[in-house]
Amino acid sequence: MPDQRRAAPERTGPVVARALQILVAFTAHHRVMTLSELSRRARMPISTVHRLATELVACGALERDSTGSYHIGLRLWEIGSLAPRGQGLRELALPFLEDLSQVTRENVQLAVREGTEVVFIERIAGTGAVPVLTRVGGRFALTATGVGLVLLAYAPLDVQEQVLAGPIERYTERTMTTAGQLRAALAQVRAHGYAVSDRQVTTDALSVAAPIHDGPGDVVAAVSIVVHYGSASPQTLAPLVQTSARAISRALSPSAPNGPSAAWKPEDHQTRRIAGTVQRGRPPVRDTR
Amino acid sequence: MPDQRRAAPERTGPVVARALQILVAFTAHHRVMTLSELSRRARMPISTVHRLATELVACGALERDSTGSYHIGLRLWEIGSLAPRGQGLRELALPFLEDLSQVTRENVQLAVREGTEVVFIERIAGTGAVPVLTRVGGRFALTATGVGLVLLAYAPLDVQEQVLAGPIERYTERTMTTAGQLRAALAQVRAHGYAVSDRQVTTDALSVAAPIHDGPGDVVAAVSIVVHYGSASPQTLAPLVQTSARAISRALSPSAPNGPSAAWKPEDHQTRRIAGTVQRGRPPVRDTR
Repeated sequence: MPDQRRAAPERTGPVVARALQILVAFTAHHRVMTLSELSRRARMPISTVHRLATELVACGALERDSTGSYHIGLRLWEIGSLAPRGQGLRELALPFLEDLSQVTRENVQLAVREGTEVVFIERIAGTGAVPVLTRVGGRFALTATGVGLVLLAYAPLDVQEQVLAGPIERYTERTMTTAGQLRAALAQVRAHGYAVSDRQVTTDALSVAAPIHDGPGDVVAAVSIVVHYGSASPQTLAPLVQTSARAISRALSPSAPNGPSAAWKPEDHQTRRIAGTVQRGRPPVRDTR
Repeated sequence: MPDQRRAAPERTGPVVARALQILVAFTAHHRVMTLSELSRRARMPISTVHRLATELVACGALERDSTGSYHIGLRLWEIGSLAPRGQGLRELALPFLEDLSQVTRENVQLAVREGTEVVFIERIAGTGAVPVLTRVGGRFALTATGVGLVLLAYAPLDVQEQVLAGPIERYTERTMTTAGQLRAALAQVRAHGYAVSDRQVTTDALSVAAPIHDGPGDVVAAVSIVVHYGSASPQTLAPLVQTSARAISRALSPSAPNGPSAAWKPEDHQTRRIAGTVQRGRPPVRDTR
């Protein structure tokens, strides 16, 4: 007779999904956690977390420090570096981003769309440039930043409708939060080939972004420059950003020398979400430290 | 009565380890794979790989392109970017690496030790600099490169003995391959505070590397400069690299402004290896494409 009690946990859901649920409990603000913190944030019993975390440590996906706390392991960073839309795109674009950064001495950003959010792939901080809220590997709403508006303007219609249906987060008084405002802005992006976010994320920053195309011409990423509001006009910045975006697009084309061999058109991932990834800004359990 | 045939696969080993076995089948040379390629490289039956890969796709750890082939997903890259020894170290060191690269116009590299190998965390290619074999996220032997010799010189004794016990890979006629040669070289590294790899990886390159210390003073990483052999002497390059290494060490110190909050001293991971990671250069199954 099978042991029902012991078999039960294996049947509550896919083990791989639960292991991932532990990994996504780590964020930029929770990079190192004790077992009990991990249990709270992953919303799983300590015994389950302990068992899965032990497996993840054995594989190198997690590491423990001298105090016994957990953090993401170098092994996972190594595997993640093989993602074509992450490190692959980043390595290909980096020389062009550095050129733009050195010429302007401003912040330069590279981002892709994942479902209904922006993921920042690279950020080069300019010398004395305006502080920005973004972080490499971090996520942001599609509706506020320059890169987000570009990626939304060229996203499939169903993604656009999902985002416009809201809720749309407000960051400043100038953030667009109605579907009507955003529809007009997205039409402007498509008409001009660049997007402007004018104090829509922070009250002192302006960003201009342009689309990066793959070989067949689809928009796969966006590049932006972020400056202090008032230091330069969008009309001055747009040609700079557009030129960089075109150079990166050219490098992405399979016919280019040293063009990429990996696929640049993965299927849309908007439905591939797991518990934890939609909780940005709203931790499910209060951290009592 | 339980279905023995269907239950069996769940009992052959930890599911998490087998899922990781699928992920580590991806390498720089195998970034995109069909299901059958993945099955061959992961050394698992197609049915098992299909089931686990479906779970991994559902979590975003893998993605499929328009042809149905698999690649590492952006989600995994995002999680991996939280590894303190990967992206955390890289972001902190990047401004100093860029300074060194811009001043010298040569290749600059940042690496850490993982068990008995070097893992490259960052590489900035110099303008017209000598080609190098390394790749961000890639691994290399500790015994040949400048960064490897630094990391080995300051590694725990048991790691040193394990490496010196061999086998030690030869890359050029000048690669050190005996324990005696290496012991003398490591003593020199500790005496001078830098390592020189003189045409020991490729016949035209010379690298000079220096150790990066954390707050308590342990060596946690190494930085190197790689130049054409004959273009500069190790004695000229050493102070440059050592100065960069000290600047990064200072930034790593918890007492420094903007010092890191994450742990910089994870336990040693030399025993945390899974199938696939020790097969560098020797694929277990011949690719029949």
